[in-house]
Amino acid sequence: MTQQARSGRGRGRPSSPILTRERVSQAAIRIVTEQGYRHLTMASLARELGVAASALYNHVASKRDVLVLIQDRINEQIDCSAFDTEPWEQALGQWARSYRRCFMEHTALIPVMAVLPVADSPQTLRMYERVTLALRDAGIVGADAVDIIVGVEALVFGAAYDASAPTDIFDPGGLEDLAPTFTRFSAQRSADPRAAADRAFELALEALISGLRQKYAG
Amino acid sequence: MTQQARSGRGRGRPSSPILTRERVSQAAIRIVTEQGYRHLTMASLARELGVAASALYNHVASKRDVLVLIQDRINEQIDCSAFDTEPWEQALGQWARSYRRCFMEHTALIPVMAVLPVADSPQTLRMYERVTLALRDAGIVGADAVDIIVGVEALVFGAAYDASAPTDIFDPGGLEDLAPTFTRFSAQRSADPRAAADRAFELALEALISGLRQKYAG
Repeated sequence: MTQQARSGRGRGRPSSPILTRERVSQAAIRIVTEQGYRHLTMASLARELGVAASALYNHVASKRDVLVLIQDRINEQIDCSAFDTEPWEQALGQWARSYRRCFMEHTALIPVMAVLPVADSPQTLRMYERVTLALRDAGIVGADAVDIIVGVEALVFGAAYDASAPTDIFDPGGLEDLAPTFTRFSAQRSADPRAAADRAFELALEALISGLRQKYAG
Repeated sequence: MTQQARSGRGRGRPSSPILTRERVSQAAIRIVTEQGYRHLTMASLARELGVAASALYNHVASKRDVLVLIQDRINEQIDCSAFDTEPWEQALGQWARSYRRCFMEHTALIPVMAVLPVADSPQTLRMYERVTLALRDAGIVGADAVDIIVGVEALVFGAAYDASAPTDIFDPGGLEDLAPTFTRFSAQRSADPRAAADRAFELALEALISGLRQKYAG
């Protein structure tokens, strides 16, 4: 909020681009994706934005602030609306699908986001609260509710990687004799790697949710 | 094999350490873990090993070769033995647990290993064939068998990250009002982050396998 209020500042100096939370987080995502996480520093971020480091510090105080900004920005794109209209099992599935789609475009961020504390990220907390309330209304409370969120997220993060796997990921090369059955079954998957990844994710997600329903229904 | 046969070469020059596939893959894992994937090059690997690049090229021809070496070395540590003694559902769980333990120590490798083709990695192919045969014997064939492997791996990779999450990952900081129920339920998890992560993984893994059993039994 303060950051947004401050973003009008540069107006007197049109040569320096106006910083917004949106621009800062986009530039940070670009650095992580193109150069790797270790290259994200306040200095590299200021360079990427074409501003002085001092201007950047008016918006974010530290690298940790930048990460929370990214987390908040990505998580607000995850669609939780099904929890308002669908039974929890269906809603959990819709949420997981939307979650995966968001991170498929940002796999470079997964190692960071998977372990980033939620403090100071309002969108992340709102999302978790929405899922938690749906589970609670279905009688799933305490550590179990949080563990279900963590478990679904784990599947989502892993599956987001798989969606960017190359077509030949299961081609045994010259070693087919070591895995003849696996190779034959792999050849029966879709030739489109994205479609193959979608199918594997759906199979696992549906099994996971079906197992949860079995455990908690009655 | 040729690499191992060649590893006796340096013997005339004791000042240059003898290269083995083991040493090469360990040094490569160290670079990825400590410096990041982008810093793994044939030049940096030779430096890390304290040998001339030409000596390294006697063992591995390219970065891709190095990655396959790492993949092979890690995957041979994953325990598939339960498939010889247990029903497929139990064995799949044991395999997933061992798989997660291996990658918990090597989360930096997940983004690379999750999308690396299996060609030229005998241990990876042997592992996949072992799991596939157990599923086939249970009547699960074709794309489904491979999708189950992919789905379990996705959960395993995501859960490996979660095992290194900090204690305060779900501490809302000053924003507790945005997620009161989530915060209350989170406080009921184990205070030991590793134990909390184990519990979430077990809950998801058991639900996933229970869902698979339901789908494929009869």
